[in-house]
Amino acid sequence: MEWTRKDLLSLYDLSAEEITFLLDTAEEFKKVSERNVKKVPALRGKTVVNLFVEPSTRTRVSFELAEQRLSADIVNMQASSSSLLKGETLLDTVRNIESLQVDLIVMRHSAPGAQAFIAKHLKCGVVNAGDGAHSHPTQALLDIFTMREKKGALKDLKVTIVGDILHSRVARSNMWGLLKLGAKVTLAGPSTLVPREFEAAGVRVCHNLKDAVQDADVVNLLRIQHERQSAGFFPSTGEYAKFFGLNRQNLRWMKPDVLVMHPGPINRDVELTSEVADGPNSVILEQVTNGLAVRMAVLFLVAGCVKK
Amino acid sequence: MEWTRKDLLSLYDLSAEEITFLLDTAEEFKKVSERNVKKVPALRGKTVVNLFVEPSTRTRVSFELAEQRLSADIVNMQASSSSLLKGETLLDTVRNIESLQVDLIVMRHSAPGAQAFIAKHLKCGVVNAGDGAHSHPTQALLDIFTMREKKGALKDLKVTIVGDILHSRVARSNMWGLLKLGAKVTLAGPSTLVPREFEAAGVRVCHNLKDAVQDADVVNLLRIQHERQSAGFFPSTGEYAKFFGLNRQNLRWMKPDVLVMHPGPINRDVELTSEVADGPNSVILEQVTNGLAVRMAVLFLVAGCVKK
Amino acid sequence: MEWTRKDLLSLYDLSAEEITFLLDTAEEFKKVSERNVKKVPALRGKTVVNLFVEPSTRTRVSFELAEQRLSADIVNMQASSSSLLKGETLLDTVRNIESLQVDLIVMRHSAPGAQAFIAKHLKCGVVNAGDGAHSHPTQALLDIFTMREKKGALKDLKVTIVGDILHSRVARSNMWGLLKLGAKVTLAGPSTLVPREFEAAGVRVCHNLKDAVQDADVVNLLRIQHERQSAGFFPSTGEYAKFFGLNRQNLRWMKPDVLVMHPGPINRDVELTSEVADGPNSVILEQVTNGLAVRMAVLFLVAGCVKK
Repeated sequence: MEWTRKDLLSLYDLSAEEITFLLDTAEEFKKVSERNVKKVPALRGKTVVNLFVEPSTRTRVSFELAEQRLSADIVNMQASSSSLLKGETLLDTVRNIESLQVDLIVMRHSAPGAQAFIAKHLKCGVVNAGDGAHSHPTQALLDIFTMREKKGALKDLKVTIVGDILHSRVARSNMWGLLKLGAKVTLAGPSTLVPREFEAAGVRVCHNLKDAVQDADVVNLLRIQHERQSAGFFPSTGEYAKFFGLNRQNLRWMKPDVLVMHPGPINRDVELTSEVADGPNSVILEQVTNGLAVRMAVLFLVAGCVKK
Repeated sequence: MEWTRKDLLSLYDLSAEEITFLLDTAEEFKKVSERNVKKVPALRGKTVVNLFVEPSTRTRVSFELAEQRLSADIVNMQASSSSLLKGETLLDTVRNIESLQVDLIVMRHSAPGAQAFIAKHLKCGVVNAGDGAHSHPTQALLDIFTMREKKGALKDLKVTIVGDILHSRVARSNMWGLLKLGAKVTLAGPSTLVPREFEAAGVRVCHNLKDAVQDADVVNLLRIQHERQSAGFFPSTGEYAKFFGLNRQNLRWMKPDVLVMHPGPINRDVELTSEVADGPNSVILEQVTNGLAVRMAVLFLVAGCVKK
Repeated sequence: MEWTRKDLLSLYDLSAEEITFLLDTAEEFKKVSERNVKKVPALRGKTVVNLFVEPSTRTRVSFELAEQRLSADIVNMQASSSSLLKGETLLDTVRNIESLQVDLIVMRHSAPGAQAFIAKHLKCGVVNAGDGAHSHPTQALLDIFTMREKKGALKDLKVTIVGDILHSRVARSNMWGLLKLGAKVTLAGPSTLVPREFEAAGVRVCHNLKDAVQDADVVNLLRIQHERQSAGFFPSTGEYAKFFGLNRQNLRWMKPDVLVMHPGPINRDVELTSEVADGPNSVILEQVTNGLAVRMAVLFLVAGCVKK
C-alpha cells in the first residue's frame, strides 16, 4: 500500500492495513538501527518543531532522538499553555510556526482534539504526541509493535489493559489499534475507573484482576497518576496495589509466557512490584527501544505526504 | 558596498545604504529558500549562542531556524536574569560565553542598551534580539523588507504605526529604519501612549485613527501588552479596540491596497478583527516567513566581520 | 597507556597515569581547535544525553559545545528532580534513557554518588558533571590542565585553594587530582569552612590568608555561595572579603607570577576585586576555554569504552 496521510492523529482513524503498514515500516527502521546504522538521511533538510504545550520529558526525548536519526532539523518549544500563547489562539500560534517553513509539528496538548483541529488548517504535517485523555497513537503503536514482535500475529491475541482506563489516552489508543487488528481486548480496573460503557466498543470489562489476566497473552499496565488519586478517585494507591498491582503471587495465575508491559514511568509497588518489573515477563525497556523505530516510521511516512 | 560591522544593535546606527544592503542580502536568501534549498553552509563551523535573558518564544525560534539554515552550531541559554547570572555581572557572563569560542551571541535583554554595552567589550559578534523598550532591529528589518517586497520603493511610502508607541521597541526600530530610507511615518494611538515629543524625530503624531490611516500605504499595528493595561495605562483593551482597532468598517476608509501588518502575537478583536487579520490586505504570516531570510542575512553579514 | 573506563566519576578513582593521559588528550584537542578545526567526527553517530537534575548553565553549555565539536547527537534534559522523575526511581529514569540507544549520559545531580550508582547498572557511559558537594572531576581537570599549561610540571607545585572547602565539590576534586600528581596542596579559609580534618588527606590547612598564599604558585579561589551564607555559616560575604578576598594589597604578598584561578561565576569584591580578576595574574577566562578541550577529551575517551 501507499501511505497518504500528512498527519497521525489517532489510531481510530486508521484502517488495519494502515496500522500494519506503520508497524512494518517501523520494523525496517529497527533492522537498520540493529545493523548499527544510527542515522539515515530520510528527513534531511526537513524541519520538525516539537511543540509540547503540556509538560513531558520521555515522549519529547524519544521523538527528538527519532528526528535526529532521520537527520531532521529540530526546534523544541516547551511551555505551559499560558506563557506560550500569550492570549494568541492556538491556530495563530501554529500558523506562525508553519510560516517559518516548518515541515512537521509534533504536538502534545491538554485539549482532546487539538491536533486534529490544527491539522485541518495547516499544510504542514501534524503528529499527535498526546492530547488530553483522548489519544496517544505513537505510544499505542509501540505497544502493539512490541506485542507483534514477541507474539507474532495480533489476530485473536488476548490483551488485558489494567488501570485507570477512564483517564488514559494510552488505553484508548491501544484499544482502538488492537481492535482494528483483530485482538481480543479486556479492560480491567476498579469500577470507578473502568465503566461498563466501554463494552459498547467491543471489549470485555472486568473489575477483578484474576478474571482479567488469567487467559491473557499480554498484560499492559497503565501508570497510576497520583494527581488523579488526590482528586478523590477511588482507590488510594495502597488499595490499588492490593487489588490491581502485579506481584510474584498473582503472576502465577497467568500464562508462563505472558508479556508484562507498561508505558512508564512505573511506580514500583503500585502497578507492579520490582520482581515483576525486572523479571523475565517484563518487556518494559524493550517498549522504550521500540518507540524509537515506531516514531521514525511515523515521521518518515507523514513527512512524505507534506506538500510544499 | 562591503559590510563592516560585527554587531547589529539598532537601525538608528546604520546608514540608508547599510539598511538597503541588509534588505538586498535577505532577498538573496529568500530566493535561495524558494528554490527549495533549505540549508546553506555559510556558518558551518561557527557557533551561535542564543542568550535570552527575557522570555521569548517566537523570536528565539525564528533565530534558531535561521541559524540552522546557515548550518551553524547552536546553543540556547534561556533564563530569567536572576537565575542565569547568579550575582555575576552581565559582562562576566558574556565574556565566559566568548571564552567558549563562540562566534556570535544573539541576545534579548530587558535593559535598553545591554547589547551595545557588551558588544564594545567582546570580539565575538552581537545581534540585538530586543532590548527593553529600546530597539528590535531584526523585527523592523523584516517589517521593512515586507513593505519593500509588496510596495517597491520605500522613498515617500506612507507608513502608519498604530498602538503603544511609547513602550514599543518595534515602533522605535521601524521608525528609525523607515525615516533613513525616506518613508513618511505617522505614529497613531491614544495620547497617553503616543506623546507629541515624537514629532521631533520627523514623524507625524496622530491621536485619531481615521486621520492616521486614510492615506497610508502601510498600517503596522503593534501588539497591545495586557500587562501594560493592568499597570493603569489608559485605555482598557475594550476602549482601545473601539478607537484604534482595525475592523471591516474602518478598513473602508483606507486605500484598497493598504498593507496591514502586525509583529504578532495578535490579539484578535483588540488590535484587529479576524476579518482584517485573515483578509486580503493582511501580510502578517508573510512577515513571519520574511523574518527567516532577514535573520539569515543579518547573521551571515555580521559573522563575516568577526575576527578570530 | 590505553584508556579503559566507560565512566568518569571522580578523580579519586584514577591513577596519576590516567589523569596525565586525560590531560595529554585534552592538549591534543586544544591544538586541533587552535588550528581552527572546529569540529572533529570523533563522536559522529553517538548520542549524548545531558541530564541535569540540578540547575546549571555554564557547565551544561560547556559540555554541549564540547559534544557539538565532537559531532555527537545531543539531547538536553534539564529539570528539577521532582518534575523529571514523577515518582520514578533514578535508576528507572536512566535505564529508560539507555533504552533509547544512548551512548553517554552526562549527569549533574544533587546526591553525592548518584553517578557512581547508575554507572554500575548501565552499559552506556556516565560522566559526572557534579554530584552535590562530592565531586566535579571535569572542573578539576580543567583547573589542573591550566596549571600544567602555565607552570609546566605539577610535581611539587604549590597550590592553595581558598574558600568554602567543606561544601565544595570543586575543592575536593582539585585536591585529589593534585595530590595524585604530586602537587603540594594548601586549603585556606575560615575555620568553619575548612576543618582541620582535611589534614588527614595529606594537605596543609590554613586559616590565615597570608600564610596560605605567600609561597603559592597557584591560588584557586572558590565561589562563595550566597545560599550558604544565609544558612548561617560564618562569615558574611563582607567579612569573607575582608579576611579572604584577593585584592591589590594582598596580591603583593604573593609571588609575582602566581596564577589566580576561579571556577566562576565570580563575585566581584567578594572572592577577588576587579583589579585581580582582570589583572595579569588571572587565568579565569583561559580556564573556561580549556574546559572545552578537557571535556572533549573526557567524552572521547569514555565513549571509546562503551560496548554496544
